[in-house]
Amino acid sequence: MSNDTNVKWHEHQVSREQRESLNGHRGCVIWFTGLSGSGKSTIANALDHKLFQNGIHSAVLDGDNVRHTLNAGPGMLKEAHGEQFAKRFGLGFSAIDREENIRRIGSVAQLFAEAGVIALTAFISPYRSDRERVRKSLRAGEFIEVFVDTPMEICESRDPKGLYKQARAGLIKGFTGIDDPYEAPESAEMTISAANKTPDELADEVIAYLEQQGICRRSSVLQSRTVNG
Amino acid sequence: MSNDTNVKWHEHQVSREQRESLNGHRGCVIWFTGLSGSGKSTIANALDHKLFQNGIHSAVLDGDNVRHTLNAGPGMLKEAHGEQFAKRFGLGFSAIDREENIRRIGSVAQLFAEAGVIALTAFISPYRSDRERVRKSLRAGEFIEVFVDTPMEICESRDPKGLYKQARAGLIKGFTGIDDPYEAPESAEMTISAANKTPDELADEVIAYLEQQGICRRSSVLQSRTVNG
Repeated sequence: MSNDTNVKWHEHQVSREQRESLNGHRGCVIWFTGLSGSGKSTIANALDHKLFQNGIHSAVLDGDNVRHTLNAGPGMLKEAHGEQFAKRFGLGFSAIDREENIRRIGSVAQLFAEAGVIALTAFISPYRSDRERVRKSLRAGEFIEVFVDTPMEICESRDPKGLYKQARAGLIKGFTGIDDPYEAPESAEMTISAANKTPDELADEVIAYLEQQGICRRSSVLQSRTVNG
Repeated sequence: MSNDTNVKWHEHQVSREQRESLNGHRGCVIWFTGLSGSGKSTIANALDHKLFQNGIHSAVLDGDNVRHTLNAGPGMLKEAHGEQFAKRFGLGFSAIDREENIRRIGSVAQLFAEAGVIALTAFISPYRSDRERVRKSLRAGEFIEVFVDTPMEICESRDPKGLYKQARAGLIKGFTGIDDPYEAPESAEMTISAANKTPDELADEVIAYLEQQGICRRSSVLQSRTVNG
């Protein structure tokens, strides 16, 4: 049996560069940040759709797919893992829990980028320090911070989940923009506003930036589709 | 300004099916489990390489890319996040910390699968219940458990990181196979052994299974490459 252990075990990892070369585009993280209702998730999904149409590999991380799994709260973890576990690892809304929420999302976005995927994250992520930590975890040029600077009154008038109403009524505490600060980026790669543009238009603006940075290229297919409406 | 809020906001998410159709293969999780030194990570990387050569999108999650970021220990978190944070969220090696380690990896693998990627995870994951929870989080047929059943004496004789030696000397406590149990899968999709086959041969066996399940198809390119050596 001992001879069998001498079987040659080559390690052959696919390099980041090889993967990106095959894909025809680079991996990176596009980090949307902004108030609740500013349009982050809608724009990220519109962008994801356009990238998809061009054969570019992308993935959206937002509350819908993270809050129930990776960053589940104690209530969600309790049934499968028990009370002690849920208490220790479930994420709430305290300052350090929010910090951990963003830290985990940043780590996952990094894993996607390393796999050659364009990761689109859509979280309020109100604190500058949290976003800067994610930026530092990535290579230069691979963290693209997109500040969705939609005016607060528009976000509040939209209020897609009725959260502003609850926050104004004092039913939700620590709500960003109401009784918790939003720290606007000081040097975001892009600042966009959903006040008077559609998500499609905004997604096109982000793609133009990505092309300019050499991260990806739109295929001719989409360009003609865009021209035709 | 208020009129601007009436801009039509279409939600157009790319469906899992659309993405898989464009990719030409399905997303899933291939969960390698087995003793330290059994060959999980090497086989996963060999498989990743072969999938890559066929234009199939895959990503490896293993200790190398997870233990320093998503599942970092207290020591690694302390500098960037402070002591209180590191103590609360850093993962150690207690029973529930190990459970959380696997839970997070399962969540990330699920996100990759949902993005149409074949996620290859390579962790000892010694407890049946932890693996079963990940299985349940995925759709039927999307959790492919691969038991790397390399005999313990071979794992120990390889001991690539010198861990068995340390465990035998009592320098590492709770080491799987020495003083902590490994719960072998009862109904793994595949059982393989690295005792007398190369990682390439084992990777080919996994690909054959994936083809049989309709998850992906090898391009003719690789088939000829395989034939030629």
